[in-house]
Amino acid sequence: MKFDILDKTASLKRPSLDKEELQETVAQVFKDVAQNTDKAVQKYTELFDGIRLTSLQVTTEEIAEAVTKTEADLKQAIDLAYQNIKTFHEAQYTPGTPVVETAEGVSCWQETRPIQKVGIYVPGGSAPLFSTVLMLGIPAQIAGCKEVILCTPPDKNGQINPAILYAAQNVGIEKIFKVGGIQAIAAMTYGTQEIPKVYKIFGPGNQYVTAAKQYALNLGVAIDMPAGPSEVMVVADETAVPAFVASDLLSQAEHGPDSQVVCISNSKEFLSEVIDQINVQLPGLSRQDIARKALENSKFVYIDNPQDTIDKINDYAPEHLILSTADNDFYLKNLCNAGSVFIGNYTPESAGDYASGTNHTLPTNGFAKAYSGVGTDSFVKKISFQKITAEGLKNIGKAIEIMAAKEGLQAHKNAVSLRLEEVNKIEGVK
Amino acid sequence: MKFDILDKTASLKRPSLDKEELQETVAQVFKDVAQNTDKAVQKYTELFDGIRLTSLQVTTEEIAEAVTKTEADLKQAIDLAYQNIKTFHEAQYTPGTPVVETAEGVSCWQETRPIQKVGIYVPGGSAPLFSTVLMLGIPAQIAGCKEVILCTPPDKNGQINPAILYAAQNVGIEKIFKVGGIQAIAAMTYGTQEIPKVYKIFGPGNQYVTAAKQYALNLGVAIDMPAGPSEVMVVADETAVPAFVASDLLSQAEHGPDSQVVCISNSKEFLSEVIDQINVQLPGLSRQDIARKALENSKFVYIDNPQDTIDKINDYAPEHLILSTADNDFYLKNLCNAGSVFIGNYTPESAGDYASGTNHTLPTNGFAKAYSGVGTDSFVKKISFQKITAEGLKNIGKAIEIMAAKEGLQAHKNAVSLRLEEVNKIEGVK
Repeated sequence: MKFDILDKTASLKRPSLDKEELQETVAQVFKDVAQNTDKAVQKYTELFDGIRLTSLQVTTEEIAEAVTKTEADLKQAIDLAYQNIKTFHEAQYTPGTPVVETAEGVSCWQETRPIQKVGIYVPGGSAPLFSTVLMLGIPAQIAGCKEVILCTPPDKNGQINPAILYAAQNVGIEKIFKVGGIQAIAAMTYGTQEIPKVYKIFGPGNQYVTAAKQYALNLGVAIDMPAGPSEVMVVADETAVPAFVASDLLSQAEHGPDSQVVCISNSKEFLSEVIDQINVQLPGLSRQDIARKALENSKFVYIDNPQDTIDKINDYAPEHLILSTADNDFYLKNLCNAGSVFIGNYTPESAGDYASGTNHTLPTNGFAKAYSGVGTDSFVKKISFQKITAEGLKNIGKAIEIMAAKEGLQAHKNAVSLRLEEVNKIEGVK
Repeated sequence: MKFDILDKTASLKRPSLDKEELQETVAQVFKDVAQNTDKAVQKYTELFDGIRLTSLQVTTEEIAEAVTKTEADLKQAIDLAYQNIKTFHEAQYTPGTPVVETAEGVSCWQETRPIQKVGIYVPGGSAPLFSTVLMLGIPAQIAGCKEVILCTPPDKNGQINPAILYAAQNVGIEKIFKVGGIQAIAAMTYGTQEIPKVYKIFGPGNQYVTAAKQYALNLGVAIDMPAGPSEVMVVADETAVPAFVASDLLSQAEHGPDSQVVCISNSKEFLSEVIDQINVQLPGLSRQDIARKALENSKFVYIDNPQDTIDKINDYAPEHLILSTADNDFYLKNLCNAGSVFIGNYTPESAGDYASGTNHTLPTNGFAKAYSGVGTDSFVKKISFQKITAEGLKNIGKAIEIMAAKEGLQAHKNAVSLRLEEVNKIEGVK
């Protein structure tokens, strides 16, 4: 493939996503599931997944069988990934604040509580994304979510890939349902006889699932984050290895034809070498057709100085950012917007996708400007508490009365005034 | 007013919100602002706020004048609230994780970065909500957001209430725009010549503003949280003071005719006394018409045991929860879902609305099941980082290769294999 090397004025604007056309299908399936619950879910499972299921929940026998079916080396790999992801996500847990006395007698604090009911969606199709089960199940486990359910579409024989079930067992998920697509999101939104309603839905999916999650969000169910095509931005100079950079770009490109791939360098020669390496590696890939499509939208950008480069990074807000330069510290210091960052020659993006310990559910489409990736925080809420003594209310009561009166909220003022009167009365008696 | 005392089977289901009908108006204004920017904003400001403005930004002279115009005691009250809110929100700031070595040579960490551009919406109308300026401006300041803008509708003379400008100055907001309603949210979504585009929009508003924020969310702008009518649940027994409880219920009821007010007690006599006190206090209120409307939907519920009571609390997930019982510790221990909690006889909800230090922007409508209230976290994102040495990649590389291959992502595997080959080659040479 041939690629142009662009200059720093190159637009990295992402193609806009047209979600309108899916809305009608989504609305229809949601309506049907709301009315006909499991019957509707079964109907769409037959329609979209080509299998008629009378019971959607995976049985304990099926799980036990999957565990024996999963190859030993894959189990070991999953177990290693599990440990690393667990270690890092445990470090993310914040128990809230200590008790803070904002004024004498006024104690405020924050406590972390798990979201009680969460739903994890794992896509089916050609690739059984058991890694996503780990990435979502582990923080749910650490957070202490009481009910964690997993929905994933069955294959044509009504089966779930054993590795998905093995990973689910690893993270302690017991309720697994053979349901995918819009109908899975609708079922978790409304609840059916078999599938419980949840408070927050996590997980990747195709455009239908994405549109369904957005629909659920508008119905009041929380979601992990809005989604767009996956993307990587690599910033590399001549200290980087062109073959490694090419392999990272290709690993992003193979995700899907709409994947975004951007490479920035201060050396045109280096960019040319990366392009050469792409052409060397591409023909050997099993998903090269997909990668080729994605590469058609890739950008190779020559920028000769770090300041313009960091401006470009922050403006693009990449989901994945790989830094392989002599200047990494400059970029780390000035980075504002990115999902997850991979530093140095020996840190491929695929490490974070599977086993380094960081989460692979990250903000795409520039959402890194306002959103964090999924982490332990995503599975908890923070509740604030306050406890005020009579003395404390004397310290801040006057201020509340003045502010409430000025905002025209007399009953708000009264709630303080009544209490202050009583406090003064008691003290008068003393 | 007369109120029934219900039993524990009473449904506390909230009335469902119909947002459909507003959608068309919202879509139309957004489209117009996207196309005609400031001209459209000015048009709607004239239409909805009755004032023709050629310039939307509040000048430094107007701010200086507002500071001198604000009464001394109100300034003092705002300053006190500012301090308490600042103290508590500083305690909420988490700098990320330390560097965690998940495996030897595999370093992962998380860093907190401010959202660069945020927009704060403050409603106008009868009550100048300067307290909201503090509640949103202070955590933005602590987070270190680079550009914080404030939009609030002008009065018929094109003015902003001085207390709002004073509070804005206090929290370091310099860009204040005289624009409200849907057009304000649209302007912050798209950006106009005068009003910058932001990445996240915060703040309360009427049903139009709420629908506009939801619309912005679907366009990819983050929002603080979905909104519904404000609400309080009071759980009180005979250790509580009926007049205090009544004053808290009324302070919630005066917010708006759709406010929700629920009182649970293990004593019917106590509930009757609270009702009596409501009838004593209600006639003296300036907003009694609003409060009466809200009270028509209020619920007084007799539940004779703590377990059923805590189940009711967790199921309702109140925005504000006031606990005034001999058993507070039991409820605190078993509480799963609430926005902000007020403990004991001397902790009225209005303390948290203004000056205790906690935030008053909280999840309504049961959203406390999945959402936290606004806090310092709401103004930051967390970026994950990883740095792997050659040794580290040897430790986790095999697992990544196996998992990637099994998920059918060969290029993901290659990115590791190429590097491992190189590492082995170098080591072979040694």
